Amino acid sequence: MSDAIVIVGYGNVGHHLLMAFSKNTDHKIFVVCKKKIDTELISNPSVYWIDESELPEKPPLYCFLTVRDDQIKKTAESLPKNWLKESTIVHCSGVLAADYLKQICTHFALFYPLNSFSKEIPFVWDDVPVFIDSSDKSDKEELRVLAEKLGAKPIENNDSIREQLHVAAVMVNNFTNHWFRLAAEYLEEKEIPFKYLLPLIRTTISKLDYESPEKAQTGPAIRGDINTIDKHLKMITKMEVLELYKKMSASINPSIKDKLE
Amino acid sequence: MSDAIVIVGYGNVGHHLLMAFSKNTDHKIFVVCKKKIDTELISNPSVYWIDESELPEKPPLYCFLTVRDDQIKKTAESLPKNWLKESTIVHCSGVLAADYLKQICTHFALFYPLNSFSKEIPFVWDDVPVFIDSSDKSDKEELRVLAEKLGAKPIENNDSIREQLHVAAVMVNNFTNHWFRLAAEYLEEKEIPFKYLLPLIRTTISKLDYESPEKAQTGPAIRGDINTIDKHLKMITKMEVLELYKKMSASINPSIKDKLE
Repeated sequence: MSDAIVIVGYGNVGHHLLMAFSKNTDHKIFVVCKKKIDTELISNPSVYWIDESELPEKPPLYCFLTVRDDQIKKTAESLPKNWLKESTIVHCSGVLAADYLKQICTHFALFYPLNSFSKEIPFVWDDVPVFIDSSDKSDKEELRVLAEKLGAKPIENNDSIREQLHVAAVMVNNFTNHWFRLAAEYLEEKEIPFKYLLPLIRTTISKLDYESPEKAQTGPAIRGDINTIDKHLKMITKMEVLELYKKMSASINPSIKDKLE
Repeated sequence: MSDAIVIVGYGNVGHHLLMAFSKNTDHKIFVVCKKKIDTELISNPSVYWIDESELPEKPPLYCFLTVRDDQIKKTAESLPKNWLKESTIVHCSGVLAADYLKQICTHFALFYPLNSFSKEIPFVWDDVPVFIDSSDKSDKEELRVLAEKLGAKPIENNDSIREQLHVAAVMVNNFTNHWFRLAAEYLEEKEIPFKYLLPLIRTTISKLDYESPEKAQTGPAIRGDINTIDKHLKMITKMEVLELYKKMSASINPSIKDKLE
């Protein structure tokens, strides 16, 4: 077995794992992807861009599968037999069980960074929780050290906690981002720049470092300021946004619910 | 007339105006509040804490009214007559018209920083849009310079734009913060720390520096991943949150709407 790390797939997670491993570790890294893209991106001489026909013969220490969830099993099955026996095969899914690959390989592991990755956007690993599990105790410890090298926060995995966090992640990431989108669309119609709101959005987030979201809540709904809410409801023309505005306001302050319907 | 600035009211906005003016300008500053609080906070010798009976005789350059919106008129009316003639009386409301005080004083102005203030939380003025208007052209220019001294971004006021931005501000501040609260409550029941989500929340925001919220959207709804959504809906027990989860998901991706009802 070699000391190399293989990353299969070069999507958003694959890209940022490569960036982080190549910067913070001494491992030789093989990136397996169909199109040899971004070769310019990494000048690190220990990074090798290969396709499926060029896999190294020696099983690597770790093989990270960063393909889509529904491709993980198939991709694992297609790996060389000696890898499936000797290497630790790691999946990075927030949804699949930690032992999802137990039927396919001898050493399986989970390395799930709870965050949202985009190739185009620099990623800050500081304090990012990384859920770790493995069939081998020593692997678990080594993956923990690997996460720490990136500046991340390794966490002993518990599938149920990971699932619950995924629900909450949809709320704080997808749904808040959707409000950003609805606000941007609302302003766009009036040719008002969305960027005027960026300092306010930053304040909204930075408050969480000081107090609970419950305590941080401000605005017409929590104040029970029906006059302002009525004014806003008259200004919003899109039915769907109108309905969401009412539902959110009623959820913020149930005592005004009757006045919103 | 003196070169002083008077701040009437010492709530969240009053506090942060005081902090910013005392740090970034040479004006003598009088803070008018009933209880002389936070005197320790400011060691600056040009800051004077007074009550309503101690107003300086000479009209100040500016008198900022940072009381609640519904107290602004009453507070302005109670000011000394020579102030109402000579000083510029400034309100800081996001909702009231720029000329709201025109019946009461000779020189009136608006200085509205679009953001969310909390006394307990340090405030970052960088790039904060401050809507400025005044009955006097020279005041308008001076208030613009004042905003710039704080690091803020002065903007020529337009009441309609300010009102529209207030609607959008409710969306990006109040409604996103409410999702933080719902997520925190969901996790609290399971004794999972909300702080695990903070790096993800930071990423959600920092993406806005690189791409539009429309482009930044990720997650099961936009992917049309009904399996994951169904799983989540089974995990959420609170009816109200369940309904909001469905409504938001349908709004993110209208093509899955029928499958959510």
